[in-house]
Amino acid sequence: MCDGKLVLALPEWVGPFLEKAPSVFENIEDRMRLTIELSRLNVKNETGGPFGAGIFERDGGRLIAVGVNVVLDTNCSLAHAEMVCIGLAQQKLKTFDLGAEGMPACELASSTEPCAMCLGAIPWSGVRRLICGARGRDACKIGFDEGVKVPDWIDTLESRGITVLRDVLRKEAREVLIRYKESGGLIYNGRQATFPTKESNQS
Amino acid sequence: MCDGKLVLALPEWVGPFLEKAPSVFENIEDRMRLTIELSRLNVKNETGGPFGAGIFERDGGRLIAVGVNVVLDTNCSLAHAEMVCIGLAQQKLKTFDLGAEGMPACELASSTEPCAMCLGAIPWSGVRRLICGARGRDACKIGFDEGVKVPDWIDTLESRGITVLRDVLRKEAREVLIRYKESGGLIYNGRQATFPTKESNQS
Repeated sequence: MCDGKLVLALPEWVGPFLEKAPSVFENIEDRMRLTIELSRLNVKNETGGPFGAGIFERDGGRLIAVGVNVVLDTNCSLAHAEMVCIGLAQQKLKTFDLGAEGMPACELASSTEPCAMCLGAIPWSGVRRLICGARGRDACKIGFDEGVKVPDWIDTLESRGITVLRDVLRKEAREVLIRYKESGGLIYNGRQATFPTKESNQS
Repeated sequence: MCDGKLVLALPEWVGPFLEKAPSVFENIEDRMRLTIELSRLNVKNETGGPFGAGIFERDGGRLIAVGVNVVLDTNCSLAHAEMVCIGLAQQKLKTFDLGAEGMPACELASSTEPCAMCLGAIPWSGVRRLICGARGRDACKIGFDEGVKVPDWIDTLESRGITVLRDVLRKEAREVLIRYKESGGLIYNGRQATFPTKESNQS
């Protein structure tokens, strides 16, 4: 058997990068710019897919945690940027619920809209707002599979008190995806080649 | 910032338990019995919610990895039994795709049908078969929230080449849920109290 410990580590370049970054990001464009930069650097450093995420205090803008896609480096299909970011934020703040009483409201910024797994994880995380750069269909266009999401996925989050803002710096976020594809980046979802995804209405 | 490492560890009782367990589980009832026993022991040892999972070689029945719900102990809402199990199996076999060429077909057994997050994770994992004990609505009945799943979630897995078997020892699996509720076990999803879930047709 295994040793019973699942470890998902961020790439080594992330620490030094964050040391030079601000600790507070006042507006949503700045927050999105950080996640897009993380997605770009993840490609540049060849440490994973073109996806970045950050969790911030919604009102003050303090950065709590970041994530990048480390599926390849960690040998783990769960290691999407949003998942890594949610887990790191929760363990940093020592709570499985970022929306618990007494916590500052948190928001998740993602360089691309969440796939079906990450979408399912968002209500459990306790974040109160989701901001997205590129659309799910922008990721699909370069060959990634976003899975099967309910067509009204934005409404389902909003009905749980999670506000959704989409298309924040979409063009810049999409450019990273396109460049990844053009540079021959691995589209690593093995299952997708055989079993094409259904596209949802809102993607 | 955090140290950039997300760690999800199984409870300490799991190792000794597995040392005494068989390494091969020939039929699906035996595989399900193992995951139900894991769910029961997780409650008994007060190490998390009443959910267990296992990944096996579908044809030979060799046990690859197990998971239990460790949301509370790890301070991480992602740490559902299925997620922990998928990640451990992949890291043990050193692949992010359990369905990659050359791999034996793998199956995921879960003591309760997957929530929306775990459902989204299954196609990325590479497993070829999912076997479920209790239904999603059995978990909802004791107060857990399974999130918003597409109504035809079984069909969406089958269309990706993932066979689904449900209601395997459902009664035994459900009993663990009921006993957890009766013993005053924490129904820990904070968001669910305020924002009731929609039930899907197939749950």
